Amino acid sequence: METRAATPSLEQYLREHIPLSAAMEVSVVSARPDGVTLSAPLAPNLNHRSTAFGGSVNALATLAGWSIVHLRVRGSGHVARTVIQEGSTSYLRPIHAAFEATVLPIEEDRWERFLRMLVKKGRARIDIPVRVTSAGEEVATFRGRFVVLMGEG
Amino acid sequence: METRAATPSLEQYLREHIPLSAAMEVSVVSARPDGVTLSAPLAPNLNHRSTAFGGSVNALATLAGWSIVHLRVRGSGHVARTVIQEGSTSYLRPIHAAFEATVLPIEEDRWERFLRMLVKKGRARIDIPVRVTSAGEEVATFRGRFVVLMGEG
Repeated sequence: METRAATPSLEQYLREHIPLSAAMEVSVVSARPDGVTLSAPLAPNLNHRSTAFGGSVNALATLAGWSIVHLRVRGSGHVARTVIQEGSTSYLRPIHAAFEATVLPIEEDRWERFLRMLVKKGRARIDIPVRVTSAGEEVATFRGRFVVLMGEG
Repeated sequence: METRAATPSLEQYLREHIPLSAAMEVSVVSARPDGVTLSAPLAPNLNHRSTAFGGSVNALATLAGWSIVHLRVRGSGHVARTVIQEGSTSYLRPIHAAFEATVLPIEEDRWERFLRMLVKKGRARIDIPVRVTSAGEEVATFRGRFVVLMGEG
């Protein structure tokens, strides 16, 4: 039920506030505080080799990482701003079809420490691992460090 | 003169072959085998905070890195394919205006070793450092590892 509630609103939010996500035709496959998967079709994200452009792959993974931190923080009742501090992508193989970015499981302990730090210091950071797949195969991995600052919506 | 010759064709090439670069409104400020600067306006690259989206920043830097490798290899008379293997971006501060990605100087020795390896092995890789600036200030740094494979245009 949470998925149904969160999915359209996150997709609408991304497309309205981040024009590149509309240009990439990003859709939200699932969006819950314990897991986010975003998807993008190949056509608007092509490169010169008719495979997916690395910039699009990284952008989809960045949006997935941002989304789960945003949903976690909002789900905890906090008003805060989430920004990316660092992001690294390994491109494993050419992508010939639509691709999906899925946030990998993060231990509840880590979320709890992160939220405690946020409340205590007004600022906390967390590393989010993301796997990108296409046609059932792992095609890229991403790791993003996100910083959350309290009180800035 | 090389700049004049290379600039329009690279911009046209990027926009025609990589739709996201058109959506981002990427323009080529300069494009020579010894230096590439690409620029993007803020509007199509906004995030939810009305600053530049990290995915756009990384994508512009990726395109700058790809472009210099492409120009170097082509300028050496080789027919080869350039792909990104890894990319890392550090986001230093919010970006409130148009932003530029400039490839940092790379020693001629490194280019020579890279091209020798490409001829010898049919495959070579090189790390390309890129600085992103906006309104005269450094706003992000990027490092990309590109792999070039001979004979695939």
